[in-house]
Amino acid sequence: MRTYNYSDLEPVQLTELLKRPKIDFASIFGTVQPIINEVENDGDEAVRRFTHKFDGVDLDEVCFNPMKQEVSLSKEAKEAIDTAFDNIYAFHKAQVPAPLEVETMPGVRCMKVARPIERVGFYVPGGTAVLPSTAMMLTIPAMIAGCSTKVLATPPRKDGSIAPEIIYIAQKAGVETILKAGGAQAVAAMAVGTESVPKVDKIFGPGNQYVTAAKMILQNSEAQISIDMPAGPSEVLVIADEQANPAYVAADLLSQAEHGQDSQVVLVATAAFDLKKLEQELEDQLQELPRKDIAKEALEHSFILKVEDLNQAFDFSNEYAPEHLIVNVGEAESHTEKITNAGSVFLGQFTPESVGDYASGTNHTLPTYGYARMYSGVNLAAFQKSVTMQVLSEEGLKNLGPTVEKLAELEELQAHKNAVSIRLKDIQ
Amino acid sequence: MRTYNYSDLEPVQLTELLKRPKIDFASIFGTVQPIINEVENDGDEAVRRFTHKFDGVDLDEVCFNPMKQEVSLSKEAKEAIDTAFDNIYAFHKAQVPAPLEVETMPGVRCMKVARPIERVGFYVPGGTAVLPSTAMMLTIPAMIAGCSTKVLATPPRKDGSIAPEIIYIAQKAGVETILKAGGAQAVAAMAVGTESVPKVDKIFGPGNQYVTAAKMILQNSEAQISIDMPAGPSEVLVIADEQANPAYVAADLLSQAEHGQDSQVVLVATAAFDLKKLEQELEDQLQELPRKDIAKEALEHSFILKVEDLNQAFDFSNEYAPEHLIVNVGEAESHTEKITNAGSVFLGQFTPESVGDYASGTNHTLPTYGYARMYSGVNLAAFQKSVTMQVLSEEGLKNLGPTVEKLAELEELQAHKNAVSIRLKDIQ
Repeated sequence: MRTYNYSDLEPVQLTELLKRPKIDFASIFGTVQPIINEVENDGDEAVRRFTHKFDGVDLDEVCFNPMKQEVSLSKEAKEAIDTAFDNIYAFHKAQVPAPLEVETMPGVRCMKVARPIERVGFYVPGGTAVLPSTAMMLTIPAMIAGCSTKVLATPPRKDGSIAPEIIYIAQKAGVETILKAGGAQAVAAMAVGTESVPKVDKIFGPGNQYVTAAKMILQNSEAQISIDMPAGPSEVLVIADEQANPAYVAADLLSQAEHGQDSQVVLVATAAFDLKKLEQELEDQLQELPRKDIAKEALEHSFILKVEDLNQAFDFSNEYAPEHLIVNVGEAESHTEKITNAGSVFLGQFTPESVGDYASGTNHTLPTYGYARMYSGVNLAAFQKSVTMQVLSEEGLKNLGPTVEKLAELEELQAHKNAVSIRLKDIQ
Repeated sequence: MRTYNYSDLEPVQLTELLKRPKIDFASIFGTVQPIINEVENDGDEAVRRFTHKFDGVDLDEVCFNPMKQEVSLSKEAKEAIDTAFDNIYAFHKAQVPAPLEVETMPGVRCMKVARPIERVGFYVPGGTAVLPSTAMMLTIPAMIAGCSTKVLATPPRKDGSIAPEIIYIAQKAGVETILKAGGAQAVAAMAVGTESVPKVDKIFGPGNQYVTAAKMILQNSEAQISIDMPAGPSEVLVIADEQANPAYVAADLLSQAEHGQDSQVVLVATAAFDLKKLEQELEDQLQELPRKDIAKEALEHSFILKVEDLNQAFDFSNEYAPEHLIVNVGEAESHTEKITNAGSVFLGQFTPESVGDYASGTNHTLPTYGYARMYSGVNLAAFQKSVTMQVLSEEGLKNLGPTVEKLAELEELQAHKNAVSIRLKDIQ
């Protein structure tokens, strides 16, 4: 891993380190738009066509209701899913907002209430391995929010089936429809609806560049959907000081690196952190990994930044805005106020990122690519919209009416003023 | 206004009534993209060029700091702004979220905290009249959230100046930069940054089709911004029963109709509501309006829907998902549970929409065009992102570790498992 000193960085070098690999969205949009168009025009038939083409699977059915399936899973797998499910449920259930009511003036009551987004779609990537964790991260908050239509899309396995872990989770979360497709075609089918896929209002979940591009195109289209966030390659930034165990830090860096060749891995270390030991640990641990080729490639474009103190470390981290931030320093919790831009934060020696990836309770669908500057990770509120309400008594309108009349005058909107005046006349 | 009976509607008619006027975004995107490109390439110079071209104004300065300006405003105008400011402040301040902490298992603590989005841009439309209300709706929550860079863009008046009402509000809310430009060029300048315009992370505010298109294009671009929501023409749906005063209902419909020819105005009335009286009131009140030509045109493509009961009324309203919903029925508050899709709701006889447009405290930047199905209006949370954090004690990792190891195995991510195992080895 390349190593830099924060204090020596020229501004142009700093800018370079903060950058993510460039994604050529214009070209990806060009590839994805025709797929969307075909799904809009041909519905299920297009989904079958692309699933044949991209996944090599001829679908017997495009969708099925998981509730009606028998699931065969080992006791250990079930128990692990159940524990993670309970923790994720507990943390997201605690996010249910209390209705808000404020009397801003005597007789003027303003309220804010949450309502579920009615129809939601989840994208659960497939490909090399099954990802039950993503299925949980998306379906559980939707279940708590009370979304009435829940569609889960995931690419089928080679034999056309869906992994039992996914079906088990779908059953627990009350998902009514599983769409056996991945890629842009799955996103498009949920956004526009087909003969068998219900149209949804919002689409959630990580995915490759084509999935992300489809979400981005469709949020700007007549399909009228919103999306959770744009997504880029996964990333971690670890802050380590002298008390951080280099073996743990190496394990954390590798757990990010094994995601994909394009994973972003950054270590920010104070002078007292043992970098030599770290390099050795990285090398040793890497050898044992089934995905070592992927991890090695990811590490090659990663870097280490040496800082003089933790203030420098948090300054850089906030500018970088990492998806995952591991704060492996003494008294980690005392530094949380300094953290402004990050998706999810892992504090202290015994909190590896993987606990949040799976089971601590926090959501793992997080903003990458610098988007942590302005996007939240998926949370309960992402499955709701807030509706404001107001009610004025006669007294309230007497108190507030003259202000509204004056402002409507300033804006030269006479009918706005009239709507108040015509009522004030009757009550004064 | 055309009149329909809900019970007689064929499905295809219902679909037609729920539709908004088609916006040809592909063509508008084509117009707006070159403007964005020029601002990206030429910065301030492009902003000056477009402001000359579209607003007929030659800018002396592209930006200024409102804090340094003297403002001359009437006492009445100041007082009206101050009252509205206080109410909006109070309602949004009450939205400050408490930090959340949940111990999902013994020794596993998960937290959720809010952080301000650091750099935000506000678009305040200009054109025919000054809109101090929009300036308040956008700047006040940003001030409460603690956003550190606040840029307000608004088209200059013919003499190149900015209305004193806007400057006064900018001063109260601590806005550091006013950008004297409107249209796509203003949005682009805030998204990409220029010599004098600070780059922002998120752009808020209503605007015409070009402004909306610029926001939509830029949220999918390398500028890396997010936006509050896409916007269409403003709209109101009024539900009226026998107790609703037709004069008030007419005034409310007209206050929406005067916004623009493309305003959407819908009345949903029970059989006992006096439609004859309403038509007469509409005609009479219309004659008195300075903007009667605009309002008349808007009314021509509006409609009245007669329903058998309030359940039908709320069913239709929820399907329509109006930006503004006026519930002018007896015991209006008893029906709020039935409302699922709406931007802001006005309950009862004495709550015209214009109170929320200006001064009750709720935000008037709201989802239109059916987007109330999945977008919230602007609120405090729109200026924040939520960051999750977790901290595990040794006991916590002992409790949770095996679950994480098992799930990592299922997902075939060995390094994820290692990050836990390497720690468990030391503490067990």
